[in-house]
Amino acid sequence: MTAAFTSGYVRGLALAAREAQAAIAMADAETRRALLESMADHLLAGQGAILAANADDLAKAAANGASKATLDRLALNPERVRGMADALREVAAQTDPLGEITRSGTRPNGLVIERQRIPLGLVAMIYEARPNVTAEAAALCLKAGNAVLLRGGSEASASNGAIATCLHAALREIGLPDAAVSLVADTAREHVLELLQLSDLIDLAIPRGGESLIRFVAEHARVPVIKHYKGVCHLYVDRAADIELALGLLIDGKTSRPGVCNALETLLVHREIADDFLPRALDALRLHGVEVRGDEATRGFDPSLAPATDADFDAEFLELIIAVKVVDDMPAALAHIARFGSDHTEVIATTDGAAAQAFVRGTRSSAVMVNASSRFNDGGQLGLGAEIGISTTRLHAYGPMGAEALTIERFVVRGEGQRRHPPMG
Amino acid sequence: MTAAFTSGYVRGLALAAREAQAAIAMADAETRRALLESMADHLLAGQGAILAANADDLAKAAANGASKATLDRLALNPERVRGMADALREVAAQTDPLGEITRSGTRPNGLVIERQRIPLGLVAMIYEARPNVTAEAAALCLKAGNAVLLRGGSEASASNGAIATCLHAALREIGLPDAAVSLVADTAREHVLELLQLSDLIDLAIPRGGESLIRFVAEHARVPVIKHYKGVCHLYVDRAADIELALGLLIDGKTSRPGVCNALETLLVHREIADDFLPRALDALRLHGVEVRGDEATRGFDPSLAPATDADFDAEFLELIIAVKVVDDMPAALAHIARFGSDHTEVIATTDGAAAQAFVRGTRSSAVMVNASSRFNDGGQLGLGAEIGISTTRLHAYGPMGAEALTIERFVVRGEGQRRHPPMG
Repeated sequence: MTAAFTSGYVRGLALAAREAQAAIAMADAETRRALLESMADHLLAGQGAILAANADDLAKAAANGASKATLDRLALNPERVRGMADALREVAAQTDPLGEITRSGTRPNGLVIERQRIPLGLVAMIYEARPNVTAEAAALCLKAGNAVLLRGGSEASASNGAIATCLHAALREIGLPDAAVSLVADTAREHVLELLQLSDLIDLAIPRGGESLIRFVAEHARVPVIKHYKGVCHLYVDRAADIELALGLLIDGKTSRPGVCNALETLLVHREIADDFLPRALDALRLHGVEVRGDEATRGFDPSLAPATDADFDAEFLELIIAVKVVDDMPAALAHIARFGSDHTEVIATTDGAAAQAFVRGTRSSAVMVNASSRFNDGGQLGLGAEIGISTTRLHAYGPMGAEALTIERFVVRGEGQRRHPPMG
Repeated sequence: MTAAFTSGYVRGLALAAREAQAAIAMADAETRRALLESMADHLLAGQGAILAANADDLAKAAANGASKATLDRLALNPERVRGMADALREVAAQTDPLGEITRSGTRPNGLVIERQRIPLGLVAMIYEARPNVTAEAAALCLKAGNAVLLRGGSEASASNGAIATCLHAALREIGLPDAAVSLVADTAREHVLELLQLSDLIDLAIPRGGESLIRFVAEHARVPVIKHYKGVCHLYVDRAADIELALGLLIDGKTSRPGVCNALETLLVHREIADDFLPRALDALRLHGVEVRGDEATRGFDPSLAPATDADFDAEFLELIIAVKVVDDMPAALAHIARFGSDHTEVIATTDGAAAQAFVRGTRSSAVMVNASSRFNDGGQLGLGAEIGISTTRLHAYGPMGAEALTIERFVVRGEGQRRHPPMG
């Protein structure tokens, strides 16, 4: 299979990026901090060129009949460019993730064993229409001493090129190689296939976008992949919930931004609180224009509701629709989440500490919220500054990934000539 | 491709193992500790059955013309059974890796953000002739709250079955499900292919064995894989090395057990110390029966040596052969390691702290030894108790992997009703 895709175009870019990575890894914390600040400066200075390129992308996308949602994701304006620059400055200001000795100890034979954080190496980002990913992914990778290979969507080609030009200017200004941020400018799909085969050069691929992009990457990759397919996030309202608080989490989780992965998709209600909670919840959802699909017990409160099917409980609606189910107890809620959940975000509303503890223990998701909105599962909100993605892959990183998730710990051993076998005779 | 391998045999085992994993994850630290102790007891109690099964395996392997090395890896005796039991008790005694809050902090909005260690889930081990892997991999997985799917080599089938019987007895005694340790008893290769496709059930596959097994797994896996292909370990003798110390590291690294991955394969010598060091090193190697293949400068000290080719510098000899090269300076040594190294173990012998620091910074390998033998790159020697494998995959774990490497950190967020958007009007 590989042979068909070895144009060598992406291999050339990856080789150059990998070579450049050594210089990034050797740069000290202050140099990498200054680099990110300079990247932010150059983005602001280059705003005119970026917005002009973006206008070209938008015109082409509109002519190709792109959806309103795609056009919104693609569109830049001065505020969004400033947002990119601000994110870069936030990452720049974070504690340096490299070189840290995470653990150390001494063995009986006197060896000092340290664990030390080092960069992953070369990270490949494969994403869709959002041009801000170009700047933010580059910043997080460079902060952690990595190089990055960026393959954005074809609809954002001009915007990504203009942004990369700014990032390269910053690299040159600081005296680091351009190739540490390498854009796969030719967005033909066979180049993605070639990229995914480069297991000798690429240490990690992170796909970000719709489920079909991510499945395509997972299916074809020979390089390690960290991903999340979708966010089917649950709010479980325990019998001991504070009803006002639970209503707040429900409306915030479902309506504050329904198109994102940390929005709520399913509401599970303990049977003993259903009489008090559900009528008010259904009213509030109606007031906010949310369509409710309910199980039989829920429809007992409002027979006009559409019945919820297994497909509804499995769905990431990404719009103002919610599936609602009444459960007999917490184990039933956890069983529902185990069956339909996506390991993304689960929320419990309860005033009972033991129930909260049991819920946290009973779910394997990457983020569990006790009396807090699902919408907080986001790198910025959790204090990571920015995120390169959210992992629901139970390996390496789980949940939002910041700069530290782009490092690895290795062993450094310091001795005085210790050998496994006795000295030579 | 998948369709051809869906006999469902391995899927059934994996489903049962995954279901059993929930019980292991919910078991408290003391229960998991007692389980590992009981596994050790049952191995000792079942020694007769294990050795009888092993005798059958050995007879079959000998009849099939297995190599002496394979027979040695396969063979059990009372001492080796005791070694397995001891390893299990060591892992049992380790600090519990689960539930630990690795970090916590409070956000400006009052949210308390914690990172908490939880199990990976279901781990698949794919290995060759060593039956002790059956017990040790199971112990490490269970210690960290995981279930394990074990696919050993066909030559060890009876031994692995007898060991698994002991482990199952321990699980039952403690009241935990047998299926948490599931042996793929039918070792037909198509079942390995089926296993490698089960990305909805298996969180991590770890292949352990020869390079061809590992390449087979890497080529066919749709599940995440952590692996190491080979160990091409280097000793760099700096110009400021203590010569006696360097000679000790050389002989220990090359001769104490040449067939293992942390043995030395290449010696790099700084030009300025070559006159003092190399003649003594060549004598010592000769005395220990080591064949030396040298570059031109090395052969200047002994023209009878065979010349070292690039293939020699790339080789994991696994026998009493070493490739030797004289380098102009440390950057040349690091460049050699970057070109030929396998990210496994590199050693520097030096009395110069700055040189040691530069060497550590300049190599990306999973373990770097300063004045200590490469043979210490081993889970037991580094304090992990046992190891499920050594990773040279720069993701999740890098270097020897103990129980903690079989966990992942997730986010737990505790709030008081915090929402992303202002309260409802």
